[in-house]
Amino acid sequence: MGYGIAQSLIRAKHDVFGYDVVAAQMERLQQEGGLNRPVAEAAVEVDCVIAVVLNAQQLESVLFGDSGIVPHLKRGACVIACPTVAPSFAKTMEARCLEHGVHYLDAPISGGAAKSAKGELSVMASGTAESFKAARPVLDAISETVFELGDSAGSGSAMKAVNQLLAGVHIATMAEAMTFGIAQGIEPARLVEVISQCAGTSWMFENRAPHIVDGDYTPHSSINIWPKDLGIVLDIARESTFSAPMTAAALQQFMAAAGSGLGAQDDAAVAKVYARNAKIELP
Amino acid sequence: MGYGIAQSLIRAKHDVFGYDVVAAQMERLQQEGGLNRPVAEAAVEVDCVIAVVLNAQQLESVLFGDSGIVPHLKRGACVIACPTVAPSFAKTMEARCLEHGVHYLDAPISGGAAKSAKGELSVMASGTAESFKAARPVLDAISETVFELGDSAGSGSAMKAVNQLLAGVHIATMAEAMTFGIAQGIEPARLVEVISQCAGTSWMFENRAPHIVDGDYTPHSSINIWPKDLGIVLDIARESTFSAPMTAAALQQFMAAAGSGLGAQDDAAVAKVYARNAKIELP
Repeated sequence: MGYGIAQSLIRAKHDVFGYDVVAAQMERLQQEGGLNRPVAEAAVEVDCVIAVVLNAQQLESVLFGDSGIVPHLKRGACVIACPTVAPSFAKTMEARCLEHGVHYLDAPISGGAAKSAKGELSVMASGTAESFKAARPVLDAISETVFELGDSAGSGSAMKAVNQLLAGVHIATMAEAMTFGIAQGIEPARLVEVISQCAGTSWMFENRAPHIVDGDYTPHSSINIWPKDLGIVLDIARESTFSAPMTAAALQQFMAAAGSGLGAQDDAAVAKVYARNAKIELP
Repeated sequence: MGYGIAQSLIRAKHDVFGYDVVAAQMERLQQEGGLNRPVAEAAVEVDCVIAVVLNAQQLESVLFGDSGIVPHLKRGACVIACPTVAPSFAKTMEARCLEHGVHYLDAPISGGAAKSAKGELSVMASGTAESFKAARPVLDAISETVFELGDSAGSGSAMKAVNQLLAGVHIATMAEAMTFGIAQGIEPARLVEVISQCAGTSWMFENRAPHIVDGDYTPHSSINIWPKDLGIVLDIARESTFSAPMTAAALQQFMAAAGSGLGAQDDAAVAKVYARNAKIELP
């Protein structure tokens, strides 16, 4: 998703320095108009840093690690932090940025690679008025919808966690329902057709169940996302002594999928765990 | 829902004999144009029997119990069976009806009391061509949508079970997500507003989460439905040696709700189990 964000920013005539652990990605971006300079040199110039990494550990590393960018930023610059992290972690990052005079926008994103490339992401954002003001030109270039969720870091991450809880559980439940229906002799395509018109439907059911009907597990969003994201939800829940049995059950299904070698497949492939356990054949 | 069905049939100029264990309901129906005759007398006249009861046991009782109607029906009459039952049970009922020369339409309904009264139910139906033909005038009067799911009993009940699996899990997950979000300090109304626009949404989330925001647990559909319906899903699953962990987890939450005295409240009240366990206050 980072690459699509960089493209959207170039399209909007921003000067964009792109960094990736994969050198080929950086070269490709330069061919599309991206700039290239060592982090410490570029940092003193930029108004915004947008961090599109996998998790909290990577976020801390790119902001404050050995070659972390925050100590080099000018005062008043803004960090836009996109990974799904715990609200408490987002608050810590905000506080550490403020020590350097740097604004921090807690800004988890959703929409996937396709919407990212089109500049049509959804952003669940929270942060100070100054951080929103500093981030606005970037947000305008990359997103279709910005939910403004509060005046400090944490609320954006909390809302993202709620969304991921629902999305992850709904995917596992879609898989349970589809395989259950198939086990009862119902045609997979008929399941999608009927359920989509009934009270049992969900955004994820309508989006993912067709992958099972088509037998197409090209990863639009992979199984491996879910042990991470539902793990974050359950970490937050444990911090709050909050019992979350639906999330816990869904996590186990994604763990079984990842553990049995399906991690890189589309997340609808969690249906293969159910199919294997019940000895039924998927399309 | 049976009362609304009877009203819809009277509106469509059918002769309707109505039976209910509550005498006042029968009297009320007669005032609206319903007919009253002992079952055995009425049975010889009618073309269709529509059984709107709670479960398999009640269905067997009204069809074949001590004052059961099927032995009294004329040949070629049709039983339209609406409760949520196991597909195997529906097949048994179909076979027993056929022994009496009576058609059987496996026809679970959804839509609730409001849609029932307006003649706008959804019907998930399966049965022979003859049973569909015999049932058609009744289906036309009571429903907006009839899904025709196969040429014998069982498929209608199977599809209904798939829908109930999803619906029940989605309600419990809505409650988990709403209370989790509230525990993280997010305003309940903001949760509904944002999630409804995101990939985490479901039909049940959008329908039930507002009940939590409003603190209104007037039972449109009660907690008590779910131990029954998810119990049926898990009975079917066990018959097929099908592992259904999401359904099992949701059932436990509804059992905790029913067991702690919330059974007659709206099913969104399963959120109260979560709130109690996490010591958070709902609106």
